[in-house]
Amino acid sequence: MKHFCTTDDITELADWLHLGNRLRAEPDLLAHLGRGKTLCLLFFNNSLRTRLSTQKAAQLLGMEVMVMNFGSEGWSLEYTDGTVMDQGTAEHIREAAPVVAQYADLIGIRAFAGLKDREADYAEMVLQGFVQHAGIPVLNMESATAHPLQALADALTIEQFREKDRPKVVLSWAPHPRALPQAVPNSFAKMMQALPVDLTITHPEGYELAPEFTGGLSPEYNQEKALEGADFVYVKNWSSYSDYGAILSQDPAWMMTAKKLGEAQLMHCLPVRRNVVVADDALDGGRSLVLQQAANRTLSAQLALAHLIQSNS
Amino acid sequence: MKHFCTTDDITELADWLHLGNRLRAEPDLLAHLGRGKTLCLLFFNNSLRTRLSTQKAAQLLGMEVMVMNFGSEGWSLEYTDGTVMDQGTAEHIREAAPVVAQYADLIGIRAFAGLKDREADYAEMVLQGFVQHAGIPVLNMESATAHPLQALADALTIEQFREKDRPKVVLSWAPHPRALPQAVPNSFAKMMQALPVDLTITHPEGYELAPEFTGGLSPEYNQEKALEGADFVYVKNWSSYSDYGAILSQDPAWMMTAKKLGEAQLMHCLPVRRNVVVADDALDGGRSLVLQQAANRTLSAQLALAHLIQSNS
Amino acid sequence: MKHFCTTDDITELADWLHLGNRLRAEPDLLAHLGRGKTLCLLFFNNSLRTRLSTQKAAQLLGMEVMVMNFGSEGWSLEYTDGTVMDQGTAEHIREAAPVVAQYADLIGIRAFAGLKDREADYAEMVLQGFVQHAGIPVLNMESATAHPLQALADALTIEQFREKDRPKVVLSWAPHPRALPQAVPNSFAKMMQALPVDLTITHPEGYELAPEFTGGLSPEYNQEKALEGADFVYVKNWSSYSDYGAILSQDPAWMMTAKKLGEAQLMHCLPVRRNVVVADDALDGGRSLVLQQAANRTLSAQLALAHLIQSNS
Repeated sequence: MKHFCTTDDITELADWLHLGNRLRAEPDLLAHLGRGKTLCLLFFNNSLRTRLSTQKAAQLLGMEVMVMNFGSEGWSLEYTDGTVMDQGTAEHIREAAPVVAQYADLIGIRAFAGLKDREADYAEMVLQGFVQHAGIPVLNMESATAHPLQALADALTIEQFREKDRPKVVLSWAPHPRALPQAVPNSFAKMMQALPVDLTITHPEGYELAPEFTGGLSPEYNQEKALEGADFVYVKNWSSYSDYGAILSQDPAWMMTAKKLGEAQLMHCLPVRRNVVVADDALDGGRSLVLQQAANRTLSAQLALAHLIQSNS
Repeated sequence: MKHFCTTDDITELADWLHLGNRLRAEPDLLAHLGRGKTLCLLFFNNSLRTRLSTQKAAQLLGMEVMVMNFGSEGWSLEYTDGTVMDQGTAEHIREAAPVVAQYADLIGIRAFAGLKDREADYAEMVLQGFVQHAGIPVLNMESATAHPLQALADALTIEQFREKDRPKVVLSWAPHPRALPQAVPNSFAKMMQALPVDLTITHPEGYELAPEFTGGLSPEYNQEKALEGADFVYVKNWSSYSDYGAILSQDPAWMMTAKKLGEAQLMHCLPVRRNVVVADDALDGGRSLVLQQAANRTLSAQLALAHLIQSNS
Repeated sequence: MKHFCTTDDITELADWLHLGNRLRAEPDLLAHLGRGKTLCLLFFNNSLRTRLSTQKAAQLLGMEVMVMNFGSEGWSLEYTDGTVMDQGTAEHIREAAPVVAQYADLIGIRAFAGLKDREADYAEMVLQGFVQHAGIPVLNMESATAHPLQALADALTIEQFREKDRPKVVLSWAPHPRALPQAVPNSFAKMMQALPVDLTITHPEGYELAPEFTGGLSPEYNQEKALEGADFVYVKNWSSYSDYGAILSQDPAWMMTAKKLGEAQLMHCLPVRRNVVVADDALDGGRSLVLQQAANRTLSAQLALAHLIQSNS
């Protein structure tokens, strides 16, 4: 069974990007594909873009959608085998996952990193729990370590707006008041390795991403140097991987500004804290692609859902 | 771009009321109009009638509907330009509004008055934030100062049940344990000025509504006098506009009763606290139109949505 | 008007079971039946299976579905007549129920027992409030004292997996850390009396169910004796009916195990706490029907909705 859990599940990237371009021009192109199928979206964390874009994509494919906020509308799930469940968890993933699968043809899961236990987060307990036990295809709507729908939308955006064959793409860390997961930069870094781009990653020391996602690329700790000649600058905060979940810096000098951006085009997955992560002048200065990235989320969800339907039928 | 924010956005009231009557008899009359369009309903406050009637209306127009409780399922939005967003708000309206617009053709917004800061409430920060930044038509599902879907349903109800050419309509304040916004009485008072009715507003001193909504009509502080010869009595609590958000009176003598109502027909937007706002004998006495008002909410939402679709295409 | 409140509302069980079997093979069999009709599901309590299976069933019948979490998205309702509503409740069932009915053709209600006041719970205040005041057919999605959709799914499961004409069915109480309602065992016990099975109920003293549901059947307090020769073992916790809502025992010796189960098939309505209510070896040992029960929930919801549509048209 095929799932869509990481960017590795994008089988032929060039074909996907080509189909994405066609869907942008003709949203109803695959309107027949999901007819009679039901997609159940389970949210263990809040969501705006992912919630709406995935629903919209499913509608464009002719699917029925059922949305459930698992925490507030359901109950806490148990993921560990052999547990005596006399505490807070009311249902085991061994029942919950296959039960949901009785009522749906595909399941979408959003479950963020807890940022307390790196091993647990990087084992993708929740997402993999559904993959193992549901028995139907699973769509990752952002898990503890990966956000492939965002990364695919980012690839579509770079493809759409690049002005040269091999643009320079810089992933630039930014400060943030809260500790955030590594899912977005992980998937973005991985995705860039599959595109004809030159990737540079810049962040303060201690913010190195997990090597399985960066492909061993050495970071450039000097942001100014990293940004030289950039065509696309992808700004994002994340917490430390080595000192897991820690905020090591809130240095405002790392905020992205119009001046730093120069002629490069600005990318961010949103939501973005203005004047903390990115300055107003960069977001409003005419070089921002953040709304186009959001628009391309519908395309990436259509592509992922279409792939799950076709490759599992 | 046309929006539906206040009763002023009802272009030709007579035509709307006429179409409303036809829709009551034939709910599927405009079933083709919304085909292929998606309506996204964003709730910043709780809702029963508005939530269900707007969904129902959209379905009757053939639209897809996506519902989101912004507070519990999303995060806090920032509305002030130039803010350094290092506190509680996670996304700026400058991003959130146009992002939602990537996935929908129309947006419905419910966002009540905070009742702390009159200037902020009457500036309609949330609703106008979406109007300014979404780039697609906005439907007001009750904002800080206006509830035009309710007022239009009220006009349809008076049109449906009036027994004379120019009925006397009394808006009668009632006590309530909590401080409530002025949105409903504001829009009702404004709407009545567009109908062939004689409007009287009665309330204790200090409860004068904003003059832009009452058209400068002087209130009658004596409820008994105000109710003389009434054909329709619209009961509603609101908090003070001059002493903004304050509860100046909880005098039970202002509660509506069957005796006070006499031969008049009773109206209330609901929810109504029985035996505080309106006595049981008035609600159950056979002169109540409150359920018909609720039924007409589907019509007013159909009319507003149809108008937004047609006038923006 | 016909409602679906208890197993007594299943008019001809044999016909329903027969139609259920046909629907299992051909889910779209009644796809035309609900066209143009809207089902509004109101949740006063959390739900996973019931939420998703009822939505799925409605979709299979071609209905539109509107889902609302009444507590978090609406407000507290008043059920007592004559109350002066100056406290926590914001709307009376006399308004709320008929208002919802303006926007829907059928209403589904989930409202659990409070387990504080037996008389109030067994009077089914919430469910019966909607039955009395809505004026449209009501579907019970688990009320204070009954869960007929589950019991019907259980009957379908026994019908599907029985290996003899008259199997022995044992309802076996199990320990649980929290006090749970009697709705599931009540409806299961009642339903079994309508099937060609031999029912035994086993639990510690003090856990006797209300006689109107057991038909006066005497319990067997010795679990080992009760399980002798069982074909189906239905495991479930419930709190005391006589000492209302109390937890009288948490004796782990009552947990179901593979050894106790022997050759019998295991049933549970889910969610189940592993190694507290049922041991891993019983759930994973190849004699479990719990997922088939969950799958049959779609069928029982289709049957109940189809019945409500047909018998009220």
